[in-house]
Amino acid sequence: MAAKKKAVRKATGRAAAARKPAPQNAFYAQSGGVTAVINASAAGVIETARKHKDRIGKVFAGRNGIIGALTEDLIDTSKESAAAIAALAHTPGGAFGSCRYKLKGFEENQAEYERLIEVFKAHDIGYFFYNGGGDSADTCLKVSQLSEKMGYPIKAIHVPKTVDNDLPLTDCCPGFGSVAKYVAVSTKEAALDVESMAKTSTKVFILEVMGRHAGWIAAAGGLAGSGAPGEPPHIILFPEITFDRAAFLARVDESVKKYGYCVIVASEGVRDVDGKFLADAGTVDAFGHKQLGGVAPYLADLVRSELGYKYHWALADYLQRSARHIASETDLRQAYAVGKAAVELALKGRNSVMVTIERKSNKPYKWAIGEAPLKKVANQEKFMPRNFISKDGFGITERCRQYLLPLIKGEAYPPYKDGMPKYVRLKNAAVPKKLPEFELKKK
Amino acid sequence: MAAKKKAVRKATGRAAAARKPAPQNAFYAQSGGVTAVINASAAGVIETARKHKDRIGKVFAGRNGIIGALTEDLIDTSKESAAAIAALAHTPGGAFGSCRYKLKGFEENQAEYERLIEVFKAHDIGYFFYNGGGDSADTCLKVSQLSEKMGYPIKAIHVPKTVDNDLPLTDCCPGFGSVAKYVAVSTKEAALDVESMAKTSTKVFILEVMGRHAGWIAAAGGLAGSGAPGEPPHIILFPEITFDRAAFLARVDESVKKYGYCVIVASEGVRDVDGKFLADAGTVDAFGHKQLGGVAPYLADLVRSELGYKYHWALADYLQRSARHIASETDLRQAYAVGKAAVELALKGRNSVMVTIERKSNKPYKWAIGEAPLKKVANQEKFMPRNFISKDGFGITERCRQYLLPLIKGEAYPPYKDGMPKYVRLKNAAVPKKLPEFELKKK
Repeated sequence: MAAKKKAVRKATGRAAAARKPAPQNAFYAQSGGVTAVINASAAGVIETARKHKDRIGKVFAGRNGIIGALTEDLIDTSKESAAAIAALAHTPGGAFGSCRYKLKGFEENQAEYERLIEVFKAHDIGYFFYNGGGDSADTCLKVSQLSEKMGYPIKAIHVPKTVDNDLPLTDCCPGFGSVAKYVAVSTKEAALDVESMAKTSTKVFILEVMGRHAGWIAAAGGLAGSGAPGEPPHIILFPEITFDRAAFLARVDESVKKYGYCVIVASEGVRDVDGKFLADAGTVDAFGHKQLGGVAPYLADLVRSELGYKYHWALADYLQRSARHIASETDLRQAYAVGKAAVELALKGRNSVMVTIERKSNKPYKWAIGEAPLKKVANQEKFMPRNFISKDGFGITERCRQYLLPLIKGEAYPPYKDGMPKYVRLKNAAVPKKLPEFELKKK
Repeated sequence: MAAKKKAVRKATGRAAAARKPAPQNAFYAQSGGVTAVINASAAGVIETARKHKDRIGKVFAGRNGIIGALTEDLIDTSKESAAAIAALAHTPGGAFGSCRYKLKGFEENQAEYERLIEVFKAHDIGYFFYNGGGDSADTCLKVSQLSEKMGYPIKAIHVPKTVDNDLPLTDCCPGFGSVAKYVAVSTKEAALDVESMAKTSTKVFILEVMGRHAGWIAAAGGLAGSGAPGEPPHIILFPEITFDRAAFLARVDESVKKYGYCVIVASEGVRDVDGKFLADAGTVDAFGHKQLGGVAPYLADLVRSELGYKYHWALADYLQRSARHIASETDLRQAYAVGKAAVELALKGRNSVMVTIERKSNKPYKWAIGEAPLKKVANQEKFMPRNFISKDGFGITERCRQYLLPLIKGEAYPPYKDGMPKYVRLKNAAVPKKLPEFELKKK
């Protein structure tokens, strides 16, 4: 009996092996603005793929995102040591280069899709992992449709990433937790600074943060204090709330009079009643050119001219999204997990989905990996719900605080040597080209 | 014999006790721009004073620097627990409030000096510890002269502090090492970011840092890379080097063409050939007001209009000098040590000196505490030596690197709770007033 069973099992095993597809290579690329932890997702993809050599041959990374696929500029990640790939988890920026390049529709530029298939065929690529935000999800969606539209079988999985936290159908986006921690900590620190100076010097401090359309990053500034009256920041400006000049000035004045100082966190995307960005408020330089200022200097000038208070302002720009030195441990774990899950989903045969993070509970914070159809993700933005913003529009609610807090939890320090973080630089060896050159259409 | 010896010793002890002055209280205050570690100096002063109760009664902190002395607004630090004082070492900002307020000369405003003596007498203050930079050293010097000029015996010791690193006669200034580490790490991180984006997006990144007259902070940006050709930052702009528009633009263009991108660290104090700050370059706002821009937006606009490259810029402002989360351990230790040494020098009877840091060796880095006469310190600025700046004026030399590296060494992370640093807030209980009010002269 036992021997017979074993024989049956063996036969089944053989049959399964016969059905099992031959290993194919994978393509991985980074797209859009990079984050402090996007390379952790890369590590998740590559390390997981390396564990499934029977199914996935090599992971080829696109140099500069999808452009690497179009121009056959592929990086052979199998040339990197296990230690180098592991070190990606503590290295900010995009290790393979990122891009801002959106594929056009099939009808508009079919040549691009034909080229992709050529490249995929030439390098036996059966898996496509694209690591980006909303625009990049659109690229991933289009690639995923190569199967049905052009008969090229591909498993295309989107690995979510965006500091803006504006992807739909996922509780949060890898990259956001770290920028949120940076903004919360920086606001707290700068607030202590201004408070000490306020008696005889600076009374108003403005920190401008990213978020062209959604106010998630600005909201994170709200974690600098407990939310009790008088605690900084005293004002948060969201893109979701129309800028009210009079109410803003009144609040600044009230804060300085009551607490001695006023700390403001302003989203770059704040707009006036006509829907115009404040940052575009008609400032001209010495030559009469329209100047692309920032929101912070605009607000600072308003405070100076209308209230006369001494101010300082900061514009964190890339510092905020590349600040691996103060990354959130939660964020780092999730960034790795979505990379790992993307490979696992592809191995299960999934196509045209994005990995998601599902919040299971708040206290204690528990999360799990999920998935969402790419069609429902691409080109959608998730804004701050109104009940995350206080009634007066200048702060966050307790509900928002409870949402944000777990995302900045834990410190995930990089290793240091001689006072500086040890960030890895990969070899990024090119895969030999097999095809003629392809010229990118000028956009 | 033995009994006799003991008796002699006892008698000597009694005689010494008789000569020993009765304990007096100490005044400590923070002045000028605060730093990530100025409170560590406060901890050094207070903890050391507490160890010498036979000589120093209480430490009274001035609320908002010297203003606290003038207005008799004193804080009783003896009301703070040992744990709270210890926590100062990991808390940025100025825990007692700082000020920008310079005492006038004796002749110009004798009333202020008479008032100081009144307050010191009323609260039995015999020690004066002033924690600040060059301007504050001037205040401390004037107070130290109360002894000879007005017959009030005081031991006034200056505790050095300035992110600008521009105090003379000390190898470095507490506060600088931490801002240097912040700038070096941030430049390195942002450089990785720009490098990943450069193919299709941002090619030029400008980080504006503090330093109105001396380029020490900008120089620290040079630690972001190894200094090898192509390593960021590609350009550093110092206040010590006159801005050469053509050479700057040529270097930016060369860097983008050779390496794909260009990272610039610019000191706020960069000036043109006429000695005018670039930040004051005649920009006007929508209402025609002259706008106090920054150097970074000015340079960005130059790059855009002359070279057409896409750029990003950041202005770290207060974030850089309050970033306790990335403080240098060397800096933290030195900040504490100068506070401790100030008390010890006062107890030795010293007056009118500043505590200094002396570099004993570079490899391994060794330093010791020294002292310098305040007369030689006040109102002096120490600029970058020319041999710390590369010949072309756009970078740092190896000699500069060897000077800077030990100062950023070691990480001194604050404790965290729920993702945020646990910074202490003192009670800052007021000492009951004994004197009539004193009105500060409007400056």
